[in-house]
Amino acid sequence: MLEKLKEEVFEANLDLVKHGLVIFTWGNVSGIDRERDLVVIKPSGVSYDQMKPKDMVVMNLYGQVVEGNLKPSSDTPTHLVLYRQFQNIGGVVHTHSEWATSWAQAGKGIPAIGTTHADYFYGEIPCTRKMTKEEIEGEYELETGKVIIERFKDMNPDQIPGVLVNNHGPFSWGTNADNAVHNAVVMEEVAKMTFRSLQLTPDTTMSQELLDKHFLRKHGKNAYYGQ
Amino acid sequence: MLEKLKEEVFEANLDLVKHGLVIFTWGNVSGIDRERDLVVIKPSGVSYDQMKPKDMVVMNLYGQVVEGNLKPSSDTPTHLVLYRQFQNIGGVVHTHSEWATSWAQAGKGIPAIGTTHADYFYGEIPCTRKMTKEEIEGEYELETGKVIIERFKDMNPDQIPGVLVNNHGPFSWGTNADNAVHNAVVMEEVAKMTFRSLQLTPDTTMSQELLDKHFLRKHGKNAYYGQ
Amino acid sequence: MLEKLKEEVFEANLDLVKHGLVIFTWGNVSGIDRERDLVVIKPSGVSYDQMKPKDMVVMNLYGQVVEGNLKPSSDTPTHLVLYRQFQNIGGVVHTHSEWATSWAQAGKGIPAIGTTHADYFYGEIPCTRKMTKEEIEGEYELETGKVIIERFKDMNPDQIPGVLVNNHGPFSWGTNADNAVHNAVVMEEVAKMTFRSLQLTPDTTMSQELLDKHFLRKHGKNAYYGQ
Amino acid sequence: MLEKLKEEVFEANLDLVKHGLVIFTWGNVSGIDRERDLVVIKPSGVSYDQMKPKDMVVMNLYGQVVEGNLKPSSDTPTHLVLYRQFQNIGGVVHTHSEWATSWAQAGKGIPAIGTTHADYFYGEIPCTRKMTKEEIEGEYELETGKVIIERFKDMNPDQIPGVLVNNHGPFSWGTNADNAVHNAVVMEEVAKMTFRSLQLTPDTTMSQELLDKHFLRKHGKNAYYGQ
Repeated sequence: MLEKLKEEVFEANLDLVKHGLVIFTWGNVSGIDRERDLVVIKPSGVSYDQMKPKDMVVMNLYGQVVEGNLKPSSDTPTHLVLYRQFQNIGGVVHTHSEWATSWAQAGKGIPAIGTTHADYFYGEIPCTRKMTKEEIEGEYELETGKVIIERFKDMNPDQIPGVLVNNHGPFSWGTNADNAVHNAVVMEEVAKMTFRSLQLTPDTTMSQELLDKHFLRKHGKNAYYGQ
Repeated sequence: MLEKLKEEVFEANLDLVKHGLVIFTWGNVSGIDRERDLVVIKPSGVSYDQMKPKDMVVMNLYGQVVEGNLKPSSDTPTHLVLYRQFQNIGGVVHTHSEWATSWAQAGKGIPAIGTTHADYFYGEIPCTRKMTKEEIEGEYELETGKVIIERFKDMNPDQIPGVLVNNHGPFSWGTNADNAVHNAVVMEEVAKMTFRSLQLTPDTTMSQELLDKHFLRKHGKNAYYGQ
Repeated sequence: MLEKLKEEVFEANLDLVKHGLVIFTWGNVSGIDRERDLVVIKPSGVSYDQMKPKDMVVMNLYGQVVEGNLKPSSDTPTHLVLYRQFQNIGGVVHTHSEWATSWAQAGKGIPAIGTTHADYFYGEIPCTRKMTKEEIEGEYELETGKVIIERFKDMNPDQIPGVLVNNHGPFSWGTNADNAVHNAVVMEEVAKMTFRSLQLTPDTTMSQELLDKHFLRKHGKNAYYGQ
Repeated sequence: MLEKLKEEVFEANLDLVKHGLVIFTWGNVSGIDRERDLVVIKPSGVSYDQMKPKDMVVMNLYGQVVEGNLKPSSDTPTHLVLYRQFQNIGGVVHTHSEWATSWAQAGKGIPAIGTTHADYFYGEIPCTRKMTKEEIEGEYELETGKVIIERFKDMNPDQIPGVLVNNHGPFSWGTNADNAVHNAVVMEEVAKMTFRSLQLTPDTTMSQELLDKHFLRKHGKNAYYGQ
């Protein structure tokens, strides 16, 4: 079942390696079929060079496996929270990519200071608060999803398709698995460039007009860029 | 028409990938036939691995498409301003290359502090002023070209073949498309090295004599280096 | 003899190159057969592209060569001290990998500030004290091992599988040669990310609960992650 | 004539590319036959992928071309000064490699703070003083060699096989062309690592004993390491 989605999710996982976002098995991508409410995700602990499309695990939105012999990625509960709450998203990515993780470990969001950022993220890429003892010792992966949701209570996840989990690393999402990977690559690139810009000019900013211009010329009903 | 120029512009666009200056479609190169006043540019939103020479778009200096079925790069109006104003240049490059963009996001020009810089850029690679609300909300890509022109009102674009657009990224130019790419690579390299030099010695400088020597031994009527 | 172990140690040495941890011959991996108390190590000064499994040197825990025509790596005495003292370890790696060595040259341990670190190292990756004149001028490579042992007198090497030797570089270990290389790769990755995090937030920390959660979900009797 | 040396010099020039020390034609390697006092150097402005061993230029120690149709590298006079003055050296390398050049642009020598450095350079890799107006406007490439010689008036070039030319970039040398490239790679590696170490611990140092130990165990009459 869901052969096309499994193929897409499989390819998206390999793209993490191709774009240099993961080493070993430090990343996972999932995709969702919104009509059937079924999520496809990478299996746990399988190396990228041995993984096949048929190894992808299919489950419902509450983690009950519908197809697949392998255990789903341990980060699955976090993915599922995001799918349940952010109802327009079609794919989720988690990595420990080096630059975004550096910001996450620093507990800082990545400010929007350039058009590369503004082309994809309509404002700061936020960082979650630190998790409490109770959250960490409870259903940890589920709670990780919840602190992301909490961070977005006044933000639109369709306009800010990514987040840094404090002391941990980035999650990103998108219209499908491939687009979520695309956003993960962009987040890594702006994490790197903005780190350096702030060393040159610690208080650098961009205007709201420029942020609007770049985000809105690529997104929304008046989009014209790149088409 | 202009088969040779289309081939050159095509190759120059691929060279951006080869030199690590772009990911996805984040860059564009154009070239001009000065006898016919026709500009050839990369089409918009076509991935580098699918693009062919025949996909290049041919237009006049005011953006009227003369040949080509695809839409030209969205940054075309900026390229055209540069060709109209800087009358010796034969090629233009725009990228979001990581180091030059870091400087652009910081709103700072790259000072000339070494001979690598001086071999190609006869002084600081300048950064434009921030654009106004009116410019951003008006004909944005055209206005981007205009702030570059404004920044060069007392500078010679043939001696400083590149600029940083504030909060955005680098543009470079040259005698043709290939040479413009060459200058883009040099700008990225000096952006990287000078960032690090300033962390070691924040007030480091080079003498005017050394700048003269290196630029002029490669450029101008008494050039001897590398021939 | 020990054909399988020689093959493993050989492959592990090549993996150092594959993972970008060494240039030239700046690294060495060994493995031990605990039943026979025999150590297999890379020969000295042989380039990675000419080395073969049969070139690996076999010796006892006190450095007496049992098989092999080549001289063992000059760092062998350090490896042997670690095998004698850390009785659960099955492999040892030494490199001059660029990020871990930068910390070692700075004389600083790498603090645990993120889950990537916590997944493999249960606390700070320590740095040894500077060696004394007597140690350096005496049996230097042996003494290098001893200052590592001294640094671990109140630490569990099975929970912190790596160290930085002051003014020198990293050593790591693991359940076998391959696992020791894995830990070397992780140390390099966290050395890089934590360097950058501290530039963003100099006093960033992670909670003991989060450190516990990540280390213990992958290690020890209640491990569940990645299986 | 000198077929073997031309082949060596040719290969050494290609190794600069392989080790990532040069882009375009930003580097040159030469070698010398001390019996005949003939120097072989890369031709000027020929790209690395088109160059052949027979393109190497042969000249005497004063720059008179003995064989070869191409112009020798413009940096030849600097190489020749070094061969005339440092009588044990057999090869010279000049690059604009990114990390060493960052230090050169900062006008700072690279302090010895780790064993990687000490294995090859017996103390700080020095930076020359800034050149005067007269030197720059005179026989510039010759004068570049002279400021290097001046910097080494109290130093032994056989123990410190490299230098940073202020506002310019690195030169290195060695027993032959290949060894000079090897030292160029090491200089780049320590330039990178020491830059980062100083950001972690600005006043970090290594002891004279450790410097002695590492340099002397690889060099000189009591050498034992790596053999």
